Amino acid sequence: MPVSERALIARIRAQARLGRGVIQGIGDDCSVLRVPPGHEILVTTDFSLEAVHFRLDWHSPEVVGHRCLTRGLSDIAAMGGEPVAAFLSLALPPRRPQRWVDGFLRGFLKLAREFGVPLAGGDTAQSPAGVLADIVVVGSVPRGRAILRCGARPGDGIYVTGELGAGGAALDRMLQSGRKVREADYPRHFHPIPRVAIGRVLRDKRLASSMIDLSDGLSTDLSHICEESGVGAVILVEALPRALIGKRGKPVDPSFALHGGDDYELLFTAPARKRVPEKIAGVAVTRIGEITRGQKMLAIGADGRKCILQPEGWEHFR
Amino acid sequence: MPVSERALIARIRAQARLGRGVIQGIGDDCSVLRVPPGHEILVTTDFSLEAVHFRLDWHSPEVVGHRCLTRGLSDIAAMGGEPVAAFLSLALPPRRPQRWVDGFLRGFLKLAREFGVPLAGGDTAQSPAGVLADIVVVGSVPRGRAILRCGARPGDGIYVTGELGAGGAALDRMLQSGRKVREADYPRHFHPIPRVAIGRVLRDKRLASSMIDLSDGLSTDLSHICEESGVGAVILVEALPRALIGKRGKPVDPSFALHGGDDYELLFTAPARKRVPEKIAGVAVTRIGEITRGQKMLAIGADGRKCILQPEGWEHFR
Repeated sequence: MPVSERALIARIRAQARLGRGVIQGIGDDCSVLRVPPGHEILVTTDFSLEAVHFRLDWHSPEVVGHRCLTRGLSDIAAMGGEPVAAFLSLALPPRRPQRWVDGFLRGFLKLAREFGVPLAGGDTAQSPAGVLADIVVVGSVPRGRAILRCGARPGDGIYVTGELGAGGAALDRMLQSGRKVREADYPRHFHPIPRVAIGRVLRDKRLASSMIDLSDGLSTDLSHICEESGVGAVILVEALPRALIGKRGKPVDPSFALHGGDDYELLFTAPARKRVPEKIAGVAVTRIGEITRGQKMLAIGADGRKCILQPEGWEHFR
Repeated sequence: MPVSERALIARIRAQARLGRGVIQGIGDDCSVLRVPPGHEILVTTDFSLEAVHFRLDWHSPEVVGHRCLTRGLSDIAAMGGEPVAAFLSLALPPRRPQRWVDGFLRGFLKLAREFGVPLAGGDTAQSPAGVLADIVVVGSVPRGRAILRCGARPGDGIYVTGELGAGGAALDRMLQSGRKVREADYPRHFHPIPRVAIGRVLRDKRLASSMIDLSDGLSTDLSHICEESGVGAVILVEALPRALIGKRGKPVDPSFALHGGDDYELLFTAPARKRVPEKIAGVAVTRIGEITRGQKMLAIGADGRKCILQPEGWEHFR
């Protein structure tokens, strides 16, 4: 049974909750939020579009909802922020069945509950083609304490959380074979975990000099830190914590760890004098390289050879 | 020449400005905003989708950009709020030419400048079909002073700003004829003006007990106030300030004033003891009826007959 716009609003509204920071949720021209005195406001928006960010034959509605909210929460994590409220703009084509919408909201709201983030508003519309979602997450951070991309300095260590490459490897496998892979074999592709708890610790303990979330792939996201900070970087390929995938838990190819997107781990830098723990909030934190002077990004391979690390691709020195 | 996602981001970023409330704009995982101490935060999101909210053969790119931002600013106005920053999520199909994007941004940013609202972030993507925009506007309001939909009480006067029906009449004419109408004949359809200045006065002088913006049409938007406030209403059809349209400035049919959407005027209620000015910020303010006990909405016609006013349609008493 297809879902009308009115029914969709009613359904979302019935699921929505007020939270500590939400004074007025769904049901007025705007939502009204409050952040603690002395805090600044964080805002992030991210599209999740059918055939661009997900495919209905590869991703269950629960997975689409989960991944949609993950994109926003991961951006809040990357600033060292606290999520306050989520807003969902959702447009559905006329023939999308009710059970798909229910599944989407189930996946979305399960993650929202886990992170204590109320769904506080949004918009609905009929879509001219495909499912269209835009997630907005509003967060807060103590004044002047947001961890930006521009704070990396030569000599800082470069760190990543968790393991890299599962997102890109899953996508590559599905694109090559044209078929869905098993969710159990690539759990982080289907159920990425936004690293809000880690971002909070890094902010509280003032460990990170810069930070970004790994949504576009390490080489591209590191290039953003380098550009915004006016620095270079050298990465040890051997040091990359490669995700284990498939039935036998084989490490992904290094290229997925270097360039694969969709991992939603954190990439941060920390001054050499700071002691960065090996685990934060139960998740491994790995030193993978160092910030350098200049603007080049280099990767050092297992054989000790240096290569230029290009965003979205790398080339051996000739 | 079609526009790449990278070029689009660069273009938007070049146009974006920091404003008083924007600490960190485009170029990080989140934007960082600041609102004055003792203020609450307003958030609104609104889709503008090709073939749903606009048509490329009827609406120039400048008009699409103007109307897109108007939707968000009008929601801030309806809370009595001050706009702080705008966020634009924009997905373009591969073949949309650069000059269309430039026109869209020109219309969007002209209005943004007029209202002193910096474009502080957003998202870009390739669209699977048609132009997809989602506008987010963040605003602020002194604590506890947002004008909600739930504050109307029996005996309150019902007021509207400006003139009604031009938006609906223009759309009807274009749908009937299949052709674009002249922008000069229906200026408010093509260039609606968000009533931020009026909302500010109503908040500052504590005149309004409830408020909503007229985006879905008077009958529907009034029903939202009645539902949220648990009250009824009676409207004098003769009192409705009907928009003048066409070359000769003929008033629109009353049905457009009652049910036509897209006017972006304000609908508000005020206690009988308050003296509501006939003009606010240079715009006419008209008393069109009164809030009643019970939950019914009635319209009194020119002949004195009472009719039930249904959201999106009305029926004569039989």
